[in-house]
Amino acid sequence: MEKKIVLLPGDGIGKEIMESAKKVLAAIESEYHHDFTLQECAIGGDALDRYGVPLPDDTLHACEDADAVLLGSVGGPKWDNQPPEFRPEKGLLGIRKGLGLFANLRPVKTFPSLLHASPLKEEIINESDMMIVRELTGGLYFGEPSERRNNGDEVVDTLAYSRYEIERIVEKGFESAQIRNKHLTSVDKANVLESSRVWREIVNEKAADYPDVEVEHVLVDAAAMKLITNPSSFDVVVTENLFGDILSDEASVLTGSLGMLPSASVRADGLGMYEPVHGSAPDIAGKGIANPIGMILSTALMLEYSLGMQEEAKAIEAAVTDCLEQGYHTSDLNIKDGKQMSTDEITEAI
Amino acid sequence: MEKKIVLLPGDGIGKEIMESAKKVLAAIESEYHHDFTLQECAIGGDALDRYGVPLPDDTLHACEDADAVLLGSVGGPKWDNQPPEFRPEKGLLGIRKGLGLFANLRPVKTFPSLLHASPLKEEIINESDMMIVRELTGGLYFGEPSERRNNGDEVVDTLAYSRYEIERIVEKGFESAQIRNKHLTSVDKANVLESSRVWREIVNEKAADYPDVEVEHVLVDAAAMKLITNPSSFDVVVTENLFGDILSDEASVLTGSLGMLPSASVRADGLGMYEPVHGSAPDIAGKGIANPIGMILSTALMLEYSLGMQEEAKAIEAAVTDCLEQGYHTSDLNIKDGKQMSTDEITEAI
Ligand SMILES: CC(C)[C@H](C(=O)O)[C@@H](O)C(=O)O
Ligand SMILES: CC(C)[C@H](C(=O)O)[C@@H](O)C(=O)O
Repeated sequence: MEKKIVLLPGDGIGKEIMESAKKVLAAIESEYHHDFTLQECAIGGDALDRYGVPLPDDTLHACEDADAVLLGSVGGPKWDNQPPEFRPEKGLLGIRKGLGLFANLRPVKTFPSLLHASPLKEEIINESDMMIVRELTGGLYFGEPSERRNNGDEVVDTLAYSRYEIERIVEKGFESAQIRNKHLTSVDKANVLESSRVWREIVNEKAADYPDVEVEHVLVDAAAMKLITNPSSFDVVVTENLFGDILSDEASVLTGSLGMLPSASVRADGLGMYEPVHGSAPDIAGKGIANPIGMILSTALMLEYSLGMQEEAKAIEAAVTDCLEQGYHTSDLNIKDGKQMSTDEITEAI
Repeated sequence: MEKKIVLLPGDGIGKEIMESAKKVLAAIESEYHHDFTLQECAIGGDALDRYGVPLPDDTLHACEDADAVLLGSVGGPKWDNQPPEFRPEKGLLGIRKGLGLFANLRPVKTFPSLLHASPLKEEIINESDMMIVRELTGGLYFGEPSERRNNGDEVVDTLAYSRYEIERIVEKGFESAQIRNKHLTSVDKANVLESSRVWREIVNEKAADYPDVEVEHVLVDAAAMKLITNPSSFDVVVTENLFGDILSDEASVLTGSLGMLPSASVRADGLGMYEPVHGSAPDIAGKGIANPIGMILSTALMLEYSLGMQEEAKAIEAAVTDCLEQGYHTSDLNIKDGKQMSTDEITEAI
């Protein structure tokens, strides 16, 4: 069956690693007899340079019509001094909101061959395997008013949620826990924020529908500590947009494999956008040395979550693990007695 | 000269460790011929139990009239299901706001004899020595509206700051950097929040007044990563209330010495409230085994910042370091070939 995939290479190393995703998709296509139609569109700084806006309408429409979207990365110092509406990040926020991708799923797990690269002691990070479920289209990121007042003497941002928005992300958290290890950590700041108190009530209500899932509430400050002192105690973590931004980035450096981590941003009907967790790495862009594994594993997540291709996803993941175990790696890693490769070489190897 | 100090033991281990602070103050008093008048008042769950409110007026007035305030810790599971207005934390937020303690100063540094207790690899945490300057009386913690709307279908909290509130905390950050290593990291989320863009502008404006301080802007998500991957790159970190809550707690577990960390909450005229970073530890309360060092080092910070007693503060800090180097420790620590002591014993030793 034909599947339409939109590719958004974006900025920095985005273009290079998207080439890796294409090669992997071509391999899956011929091995499993699929028919992928790929369409490349502009986003972020690239779109600003070419069309003057960070998210052209054509890009949004193409994504709406697709079965899934792959994103490289967005942003770079070149556009850092633009006014807010003309910054690459606006493209990212716009596509999340425009497509209604309310759930950001970020699996964080250790790769045995990379444990030595973790900043944490091995006995602490060992066996960690968690999934952060972050709300992506509400909260402080989109609440109104967000403005200066009294001639700029005051400024407000608004953390706003509807019950519905909280309910659907909390359900996503429970569902993720059900297919994993049946433990859900809900993170909030219920001792201070009214929105967190509503959040906590909804989690407690929904818990009745998922009796097999054990629920725990942790305050965001305590969660920031526990991620470091006891990362393996987490299974699924569900939280609102800004807390999820901070905690998922914190979690992403624990294993020492930031360059390998994929992420998915999805909505209820299965449409999803998949991207590596790392940024656009302008310092190494164009050199052909970027680590494509986060992008390749994002491609695997796409096959699994949006295209229903479990077996194909497993095949990609196995190929990555294999490669790492053979000591193949890019310059961001440092595997003893391993073989350092370029983006192209390691993609071929995988 | 007479100095009035209000003691707020609070909940859980707060009472026990406050006894340690009293002993240390008595020792300083006789050694350096000072005259400390101590007044004990209620706060938190203790105040709820005795007076039905988390912050009695008498407590607030006594603090207003004092030269400095020492706080043990506040909160516990006993009061967790109370309505928001009748929770111990309200006492803490109330006293911060009531006294106008807008700057929370949290030094985080490694103790060589405790490095092995850090969750981080020694080569990563080694030499870390930072100070987090957190805004404490604004932002999402106090912004209005903070309420449910449309029959509970919607909820909002408000992140509000005036220029003045941002200016004074940013100045505090620069001043702290000036007396330390002249590097200031300002943390915001300027790619998303209008309040952060104002924050960043103010930091850039103020930078002109502190030409000897090098300023760097880091996004809060990136800061959460960098604290783990490169903690020794920080000197002073200045940030708004909620970001500071999360990042300072994250930072507090990096060195493996959470039980030793002090904090200060101060305002412009020098009045300050001093408390250990750790919580009320209800699980070990009443057993006489709590680690009093965070409380004792908070007492030292009080002498230094609010009472102008540098030498006395140094003497306490030296006594603590000495004790640790001799292997004396409480049950929360694990010093090889060391001697485990009770709260009382280690206080005497110090
Ligand atoms: C670029 C930025 C707006 C974005 C966010 O904060 O959501 C990024 O940090 C992320 O986590 O994807
Ligand atoms: C108890 C709570 C309200 C408080 C805060 O969030 O400020 C605490 O976490 C702290 O950091 O002192």
